[in-house]
Amino acid sequence: MLDALFTATSAVCVTGLTTVDTGSSWSTLGHVVIAALMQVGGLGIMTVASLLVVLVSRRLGLRARLVARAQSGTNLDLSDVRRVLRDVVLFSLAGEALTALALGLRLLLAYDAEPADALWEGAFHAVSAFNNGGFVLWPEGMARFAGDPWMLLPVALAVIAGGLGFPVIFELARSRRPGSWSVTTRITVLTSGALLVAGTALLIALEYGNPATLGPMGVPGKLLAGFFSAVMPRSGGFSTVDVGSMTPESWLATDVLMFIGGGSASTAGGIKVTTFGLLAVVLWSEVRGEADVDVARRRIPEANQRQALAVALLGVGLALASTFALLGLTEHDTDRVLFEALSALGTVGLSTGITSDLPAVAEVLLVVLMFVGRLGPLALASALALRERPRLYRRPEERTIIG
Amino acid sequence: MLDALFTATSAVCVTGLTTVDTGSSWSTLGHVVIAALMQVGGLGIMTVASLLVVLVSRRLGLRARLVARAQSGTNLDLSDVRRVLRDVVLFSLAGEALTALALGLRLLLAYDAEPADALWEGAFHAVSAFNNGGFVLWPEGMARFAGDPWMLLPVALAVIAGGLGFPVIFELARSRRPGSWSVTTRITVLTSGALLVAGTALLIALEYGNPATLGPMGVPGKLLAGFFSAVMPRSGGFSTVDVGSMTPESWLATDVLMFIGGGSASTAGGIKVTTFGLLAVVLWSEVRGEADVDVARRRIPEANQRQALAVALLGVGLALASTFALLGLTEHDTDRVLFEALSALGTVGLSTGITSDLPAVAEVLLVVLMFVGRLGPLALASALALRERPRLYRRPEERTIIG
Ligand SMILES: [K+]
Ligand SMILES: [K+]
Repeated sequence: MLDALFTATSAVCVTGLTTVDTGSSWSTLGHVVIAALMQVGGLGIMTVASLLVVLVSRRLGLRARLVARAQSGTNLDLSDVRRVLRDVVLFSLAGEALTALALGLRLLLAYDAEPADALWEGAFHAVSAFNNGGFVLWPEGMARFAGDPWMLLPVALAVIAGGLGFPVIFELARSRRPGSWSVTTRITVLTSGALLVAGTALLIALEYGNPATLGPMGVPGKLLAGFFSAVMPRSGGFSTVDVGSMTPESWLATDVLMFIGGGSASTAGGIKVTTFGLLAVVLWSEVRGEADVDVARRRIPEANQRQALAVALLGVGLALASTFALLGLTEHDTDRVLFEALSALGTVGLSTGITSDLPAVAEVLLVVLMFVGRLGPLALASALALRERPRLYRRPEERTIIG
Repeated sequence: MLDALFTATSAVCVTGLTTVDTGSSWSTLGHVVIAALMQVGGLGIMTVASLLVVLVSRRLGLRARLVARAQSGTNLDLSDVRRVLRDVVLFSLAGEALTALALGLRLLLAYDAEPADALWEGAFHAVSAFNNGGFVLWPEGMARFAGDPWMLLPVALAVIAGGLGFPVIFELARSRRPGSWSVTTRITVLTSGALLVAGTALLIALEYGNPATLGPMGVPGKLLAGFFSAVMPRSGGFSTVDVGSMTPESWLATDVLMFIGGGSASTAGGIKVTTFGLLAVVLWSEVRGEADVDVARRRIPEANQRQALAVALLGVGLALASTFALLGLTEHDTDRVLFEALSALGTVGLSTGITSDLPAVAEVLLVVLMFVGRLGPLALASALALRERPRLYRRPEERTIIG
């Protein structure tokens, strides 16, 4: 019963943490339900988030180059909802169909799968990958395909595409010229790229000689597994190596990637690369002594900066509090517990192996964390933006000492 | 040789981490040198920080109610240096003399110490406590006095007074009316008080039944030890219970307290309660939807908020990077390594017991971290404030999606 609740939550929150083996514990109908829940969860979050972006832009009277085609009034009406939902569904189905095709063909040609099995398994894992769901039907997980780029690269690309976020994809589809991109799209693309490159290099360096992970692989295998391991914390959740055997340094690096997560209004979790990238820009401007925070000849409003700060700080507080609570509920080491908490909060689904070994109350806590992690940053950021008030007066200024 | 370098750094950075036992490893002359280094380190940081406060206030043309008595010109001159140094020395000597008196009398009357020993040990530990130095001459540390409020409370009060910061003490001495306090003083007093109360309650709750720490004590003993354990991470560094036997939850709570540290321009380390408190206020204002960040009918300038953000974010980054590096250099668990890194960075001096068990290169890294932790936040905050530039033009605004 708790397993079913846990699995359903994990699916609809597109997390992928599981207390029982997905392939063997549920019937085919169960697998269909899991795929449906991931699809609904992924479409839902992209649609709602995109609509909130439109709503916030209109309320604040912003030039909305993202998502919104027509712009009228200050509220959403049914045609907005219909249009965004249609675009999101089209985008998702196209991405999933391409991924399913690639995976199905590979399963058919290289793994001697029956055509019906190849079709179903390709479709299931395409839905799982594109929605950053993290569920796998095979008992040994994606480790079965370690070293096979024809399986792993389509999965990684689907995870990245689903995790960039609909508004950014929408803008990238309209224009390939970086000069015309909005600040959001620039920050998303740059930060995502930087995290992928840095994460891949770091994880390869840390696991290069680890006999339980990358050690036995050849150099191409190490590169592929390192790239795959750097993509998945944000927040696909698949793994080709045993996460529980990675070094504590790799766990810490993965923790950071899981906390940051993917793009806004995407199927990924975390505080989002936009939040992280914006704070990095604020930090950079401050260190350079700039009076304003400018990106690409545009000034980022102070309210926007404070909203990013709020999302990040509350994220840190929540991560600490949930690690703290999980520590009290289990006997596991702090690093594994922190990893598990960040995986649930970031709806990532990676685990060092303790998920199925938790007391019931800790599993219930993870269920709560998955929901909070899925909806929290979005709800918070939208609420903060929507309740911005005009400034009626300003008090006299006083500076505090810091540092 | 490395032990000597480590100890000297630990003393002058008023940290208190030690690779060897202080009492037995060094001669009496060595102990005098350690006390002198702590005194120089404590006086130095308070004087330099206070002078920087004066300089920043003048450069930015601020009404400086803190520290500065006379105000003229925009630079420091010799009379400023002399005046601040004199006030800081008087404040330190008075605090240390009172503490030495209390400790010496107690050692004389209740512990049968020789008068000369009582005088010297009282003076050494008064210097160590007031400067948040964390060095103890007794091999069993402060655990010798567990349950003795006549020893522990003077030490705790000296640590708190030294850790509030000279500007705040200076203002508190001038006026007891909270209504007249500057924003810095309000934030320091409120945040320090809240952290002390919350830390005491949390640590007592977490260690209440732990047979290796508070378990065997009576209720008054638990209260005293809990209070002492909550005071010391910020950043006195003494302990009456075995930190290595505390629960991982207590380590995590202590980590947070060590990261935050004490008051600005004090002998304490960390990002400072002013930085933490200011960010908490920013968060609160943002959640309430305020257009400005107001404290006590005063508006906190955006530049000031960004500086606090920069100090905190760089602190998090540094803590992560140093934990990461220490993990690679040792075989200890992540929670102990994180604790050690934060203790060095926050110049706290508490340890789960791994300090003397580290390879030489890790000890050198801790030496670097102690210096960075001691000077970094102060240098960063001052540099950021001093290089603030007037705004010559503003670019058109563009908001990013976050969350
Ligand atoms: K996931
Ligand atoms: K200390």
